Amino acid sequence: MKATVIVELKGSVLDPQGKAIQHSLASLGFPGVEDVRAGKLFRITLADSGQPRPEVERQVRQMCEKLLANTVIENFSYTLEE
Amino acid sequence: MKATVIVELKGSVLDPQGKAIQHSLASLGFPGVEDVRAGKLFRITLADSGQPRPEVERQVRQMCEKLLANTVIENFSYTLEE
Repeated sequence: MKATVIVELKGSVLDPQGKAIQHSLASLGFPGVEDVRAGKLFRITLADSGQPRPEVERQVRQMCEKLLANTVIENFSYTLEE
Repeated sequence: MKATVIVELKGSVLDPQGKAIQHSLASLGFPGVEDVRAGKLFRITLADSGQPRPEVERQVRQMCEKLLANTVIENFSYTLEE
């Protein structure tokens, strides 16, 4: 099973990386860029353990909470596919 | 219009960050993780320029090729939504 996890800064948190990219895009001749937010994406391949899907989802959520995301300043979302 | 761009290392390129995450997950008690690949995600807000969608797509592709992705070692994909 494959999990795709997206981790993004919360909307209220400043994103200097995104701002830098926005300014670089403007310098490169893309003036219509109003905002850029940078995030992270993880593709996780999980061994086929025969566990039911809700249990796998619980594990992926735990991975996010314990390691992949800093839940004070970041939100995460994930999708699972066979 | 909003563009979501995903930039990922090509499959043939080693991903030390992903490997480090995989090992950390194993240490944290998630033994069933077979592989982790780390990528980047950008949410780009574009001014409503009245341009046709193919033209906007062309611009987003150019942003990826010129700045967001290193096409020697990375692939990119994007989605557009109103």
